[in-house]
Amino acid sequence: MAETPTVVARSDGRTPDALRPIRFENGIAPNAQGSTLIHWGDTRVICGVTIEDGVPRWMKEQQVAGGWLTAEYSMLPYSTKDRKARDITKGRLDGRSSEIQRLIGRAMRAAIDLVKLGSRTIWIDCDVLQADGGTRTAAISGAWVAVHLALQKLVAEGELAANPIAEQVAAVSVGIVHGHSMLDLCYVEDAAADVDMNLIMTGTGRFIELQGAGEEATFTSDQLAAMLALGRSGVDRLIALQRQAIGLA
Amino acid sequence: MAETPTVVARSDGRTPDALRPIRFENGIAPNAQGSTLIHWGDTRVICGVTIEDGVPRWMKEQQVAGGWLTAEYSMLPYSTKDRKARDITKGRLDGRSSEIQRLIGRAMRAAIDLVKLGSRTIWIDCDVLQADGGTRTAAISGAWVAVHLALQKLVAEGELAANPIAEQVAAVSVGIVHGHSMLDLCYVEDAAADVDMNLIMTGTGRFIELQGAGEEATFTSDQLAAMLALGRSGVDRLIALQRQAIGLA
Amino acid sequence: MAETPTVVARSDGRTPDALRPIRFENGIAPNAQGSTLIHWGDTRVICGVTIEDGVPRWMKEQQVAGGWLTAEYSMLPYSTKDRKARDITKGRLDGRSSEIQRLIGRAMRAAIDLVKLGSRTIWIDCDVLQADGGTRTAAISGAWVAVHLALQKLVAEGELAANPIAEQVAAVSVGIVHGHSMLDLCYVEDAAADVDMNLIMTGTGRFIELQGAGEEATFTSDQLAAMLALGRSGVDRLIALQRQAIGLA
Amino acid sequence: MAETPTVVARSDGRTPDALRPIRFENGIAPNAQGSTLIHWGDTRVICGVTIEDGVPRWMKEQQVAGGWLTAEYSMLPYSTKDRKARDITKGRLDGRSSEIQRLIGRAMRAAIDLVKLGSRTIWIDCDVLQADGGTRTAAISGAWVAVHLALQKLVAEGELAANPIAEQVAAVSVGIVHGHSMLDLCYVEDAAADVDMNLIMTGTGRFIELQGAGEEATFTSDQLAAMLALGRSGVDRLIALQRQAIGLA
Amino acid sequence: MAETPTVVARSDGRTPDALRPIRFENGIAPNAQGSTLIHWGDTRVICGVTIEDGVPRWMKEQQVAGGWLTAEYSMLPYSTKDRKARDITKGRLDGRSSEIQRLIGRAMRAAIDLVKLGSRTIWIDCDVLQADGGTRTAAISGAWVAVHLALQKLVAEGELAANPIAEQVAAVSVGIVHGHSMLDLCYVEDAAADVDMNLIMTGTGRFIELQGAGEEATFTSDQLAAMLALGRSGVDRLIALQRQAIGLA
Amino acid sequence: MAETPTVVARSDGRTPDALRPIRFENGIAPNAQGSTLIHWGDTRVICGVTIEDGVPRWMKEQQVAGGWLTAEYSMLPYSTKDRKARDITKGRLDGRSSEIQRLIGRAMRAAIDLVKLGSRTIWIDCDVLQADGGTRTAAISGAWVAVHLALQKLVAEGELAANPIAEQVAAVSVGIVHGHSMLDLCYVEDAAADVDMNLIMTGTGRFIELQGAGEEATFTSDQLAAMLALGRSGVDRLIALQRQAIGLA
Repeated sequence: MAETPTVVARSDGRTPDALRPIRFENGIAPNAQGSTLIHWGDTRVICGVTIEDGVPRWMKEQQVAGGWLTAEYSMLPYSTKDRKARDITKGRLDGRSSEIQRLIGRAMRAAIDLVKLGSRTIWIDCDVLQADGGTRTAAISGAWVAVHLALQKLVAEGELAANPIAEQVAAVSVGIVHGHSMLDLCYVEDAAADVDMNLIMTGTGRFIELQGAGEEATFTSDQLAAMLALGRSGVDRLIALQRQAIGLA
Repeated sequence: MAETPTVVARSDGRTPDALRPIRFENGIAPNAQGSTLIHWGDTRVICGVTIEDGVPRWMKEQQVAGGWLTAEYSMLPYSTKDRKARDITKGRLDGRSSEIQRLIGRAMRAAIDLVKLGSRTIWIDCDVLQADGGTRTAAISGAWVAVHLALQKLVAEGELAANPIAEQVAAVSVGIVHGHSMLDLCYVEDAAADVDMNLIMTGTGRFIELQGAGEEATFTSDQLAAMLALGRSGVDRLIALQRQAIGLA
Repeated sequence: MAETPTVVARSDGRTPDALRPIRFENGIAPNAQGSTLIHWGDTRVICGVTIEDGVPRWMKEQQVAGGWLTAEYSMLPYSTKDRKARDITKGRLDGRSSEIQRLIGRAMRAAIDLVKLGSRTIWIDCDVLQADGGTRTAAISGAWVAVHLALQKLVAEGELAANPIAEQVAAVSVGIVHGHSMLDLCYVEDAAADVDMNLIMTGTGRFIELQGAGEEATFTSDQLAAMLALGRSGVDRLIALQRQAIGLA
Repeated sequence: MAETPTVVARSDGRTPDALRPIRFENGIAPNAQGSTLIHWGDTRVICGVTIEDGVPRWMKEQQVAGGWLTAEYSMLPYSTKDRKARDITKGRLDGRSSEIQRLIGRAMRAAIDLVKLGSRTIWIDCDVLQADGGTRTAAISGAWVAVHLALQKLVAEGELAANPIAEQVAAVSVGIVHGHSMLDLCYVEDAAADVDMNLIMTGTGRFIELQGAGEEATFTSDQLAAMLALGRSGVDRLIALQRQAIGLA
Repeated sequence: MAETPTVVARSDGRTPDALRPIRFENGIAPNAQGSTLIHWGDTRVICGVTIEDGVPRWMKEQQVAGGWLTAEYSMLPYSTKDRKARDITKGRLDGRSSEIQRLIGRAMRAAIDLVKLGSRTIWIDCDVLQADGGTRTAAISGAWVAVHLALQKLVAEGELAANPIAEQVAAVSVGIVHGHSMLDLCYVEDAAADVDMNLIMTGTGRFIELQGAGEEATFTSDQLAAMLALGRSGVDRLIALQRQAIGLA
Repeated sequence: MAETPTVVARSDGRTPDALRPIRFENGIAPNAQGSTLIHWGDTRVICGVTIEDGVPRWMKEQQVAGGWLTAEYSMLPYSTKDRKARDITKGRLDGRSSEIQRLIGRAMRAAIDLVKLGSRTIWIDCDVLQADGGTRTAAISGAWVAVHLALQKLVAEGELAANPIAEQVAAVSVGIVHGHSMLDLCYVEDAAADVDMNLIMTGTGRFIELQGAGEEATFTSDQLAAMLALGRSGVDRLIALQRQAIGLA
């Protein structure tokens, strides 16, 4: 089925290959070593980074060299139209949140030279202030900025000789909605999507992680190829936006 | 012991009876019906209000007329210099947080005509973005603004005939530090204080709640009187700031 | 509004400034180092004290000198007219209980010279056997007796050179019921009260903690002054009763 | 091996077939419908009974006629020489406590005609105030008294036409210590015992439950027979003591 | 009442003194050091044993010599006709499961010379694949085989000089159904039983543990004697089957 | 980089495009409506399916037509070389397990016409008996067989007019190990892999879900294409094996 994307109407008038407006508000939580509030359309995620000396016990027991990085993701109760109960109220971590924070952790560990980090633990906290689709990709893209800021601060303070970030990391979603491939789904598009895919990639165009799933639907190899192409173009633009946010562009 | 407050040096240069700079950034979480980010010196608390139809089961069972209001308080992990573990990680609600959220709920219920609210539940969520002392008083003072915004919205939408807020509510801390009464303690002052007191009062100068405690110390009736006077002057200024924040002054 | 307390009818016929009958039944739990069952009208609280060698890990890590004191408060299921489910059944500590046990701990730490205690931890357990209002003030007043007994035992056994108790501590409630200030509210009065206040004071008339709250009501400075005066008179009598209980009067 | 029990020295000077002194202090928790504090040597257990209208949901769903009875058992922290942490502090019900409360519930359900009870739930709470061995048998023996008192009260109030208790129930422990059968082990004997057995029996000499276990030891059929005989004699005396406690002897 | 067991009809046609067919499928879980799937009629339990170096902290603190053994018991959700929710879903360990795993642990500790085991911990996991009555006796009988296999493996690998198993252990149920004593109750018989008893015995005919309980019923001394005789005959046959399973018969 | 797969040595001697031996042992848990024990090399997963009448409350509240399907995944403690603690022991569901069970549920819901299922809930339980890599793909591939068996049984019993399975579903892993693409990684290969990818596909060659992740590594578009080709060939063979297992081939 040939797609004719130029005539697809999106809920917010974007073209199928357009990102929503994205900006980073750094320093939102000054007690953190690095922090940013990423505004991605109507999605807003606070990314706060704290770095502690020492590593988890399992690393000591297994005598793994270097440091560690771990992430936590949570939706603030007022981030959704209907109030979302806190995990502690329900008594257990939400399954979806658990999955996303594991994803953020893996993605960011792929970007950092943990041996160069030394015996330190990087904590990334991603708290969603407003949810309009794409919170996990916003969290990852913002987390990279906050980690960069935190590590630059350690370098500036003479704690680290060099910034152990090895790669730039950004993420974006793509999907198939009413038969059309689209970049960066907002909530109403996501709810209507047959297929939803997230790409996490490096600044040099390599894949870190790829997750595509049909929602009570399936997809073909051709559709996969179209989504990959759209996603790569989105990541390229995010990489540039992140560089601006840390003052490199 | 006669106090000579004019010569007391405070950590940030304020006079003993001065508040820190306070401002309200409304609409920080647009999915909430009302929200504000209160900046109180270096303390920052997100106050988000969601209003749901219906009331808790116990109210139905006891056939209590009107609505309900409940509050939750949480410190974001990056709000303190050392990362604070999430409640869900520790598996239970922090005792201090539990105490503060009960306080916020009581204070705000005293301010609202719950019968006029009708069969609705007001959820107030207070998440501390940065903690530099006085988070509970900031949470209460901000919560009142956020609740007002949320209820005004219901009035504007025709859901409510009139705003059921009966009283304006603000809170401030006072304390005794190195023998001197001081208004609005920041973190380093609070850590050094012999006595710490919180006043929650109405716009008409009546008390809603009063909590004073010696930290491994005690205090006299005279010291109590001095603290009450300082506190009342601080509440008066907060009441005015809140009115500005909701466009009434 | 002028109060005319002499004509106020109380549920149990007391005058507004009268305490209920109070007595201490020491040694109720002989395996504890100190214990007392405080009978306060129809309120009964078991206060048991155990003293362990060593201090919590955070004290060691922060190299704080001396000992520690911590309290736990719980209502036995049959203490109320309707059975109160155990915390473990609900899976989490009751918010109100958490708040009260933190209060007991703070009050008692203010009374003890923790450095003289040495590297020991005092555990105070307050279990409510019957609840008829004022359980927290009964718990504090009884806890002081039980702690005194436990520390005297350590002195008698030669474990401690001197009793590290620096102050006597007692607590009492006051409130405003139907417009009248009253001392020591029982359950039916407490349920009808507009304002409820707890005073924790030392044997020398200094304040340790003060908590006053309007229940969907507010109070004036004059009402505050009246309640403080009533409360102080009640504490004076409790101080004397405690001294009898430990054989000093 | 022939036993010569007359020459066995017990820690407290009793003969092998002697019970410790036992008495019931009824009404210890007046808010409960029935309560007793059983003193069994140095073991003390508070047994409180509350009766609620209605039955658990599973009974309604399965349309089981009549009422229900359930028990909870807990050791107060100061009941043992070393403080025992509360279940809620550890976050889960102690395995041993869980086992004992299931035992109490089964034993008491065997004694009561649940159909005659009607659509009510009997809650039995057993809280150990002091533990010196035999807390589960004391809990069962005291629970029967407290349940009887509670049901008699319902009869007296005209709520029930007749007391639905069908059987009297008492329990006692026996054991083998240093090769000798002994009745009613106190803590030091229990700790030294090779075999520990609990008998729960009716007033007419029938078994409700029997639990015997070797502690890293085993026992023969002859030893079993000796323990059963001792146990039966102990239960007979308890049955008489219970009848005195409820005013029937 | 004289029993005439030869005319009793059982749900599966067995005589009252007959066991169901029993066989052991060893090595079901090869990553365990020892494992067996015990088929006991339609009851199936996976018994897996893992042995770790080291002992629990309490043993180190109390300086207890030798090793430790602990057991966990769980019913897989599809083991019953109606799906049984997992413990983690309900948030706490099932009371019945907790009781059974404590029983398995006690029984197996009685069979093993823990000092000869050295500083090791034996974990026994019993997971019920299909439940048709008698899961606890199947678990114990299978656990002994799995532990034997695991320890023999340690001996074969030269880790242990000799197998520290001191006794053979097997368990079986007996009960009274419609007035008749019967060996090895299946689910429908168990549900109809007035009395249910479990015997855990050694290969030399000594008792390790004995648990008999009336289900809303009671039993006499004569009935107890009849059940004990039946149970012993069943254990004898199990002992022989276990020896075949480990290649000794 | 050109791959020369014919010379790659795998830990078990397979060629890079070979699956491990796979077979299905149906009926392993007869109380389940459908069950299979999938043997996949040394990985073994019990897949049990129970079908209950009714749907979760959220479906009723949102008035969603048809049925529901949910999955639970757990590793038995003895499935790994070192014993894996149960979730209930740690007090919370393992993050990895939570993620995998959500994946199984999504995959199977994509395969079933939930409206045709009617108001029923399908529970899929996947318990890992032995883990040697690929447990999630084995769980999905086995779950499809068990669900098919369960639904066929409902059809045979006349409960359902037709089997609501719309698609066949199978899953397989691929990865890059030491620079070479390989199908179906066992544990030692998985531990050494730079990239790990799971493909879940239908019997007609469409994608349901795709998850690829670099483990502290990244991958190119060319490597992605090679892995997708290998994976598709593996799924084709699994589809045929499943058809044999249900008697269709």
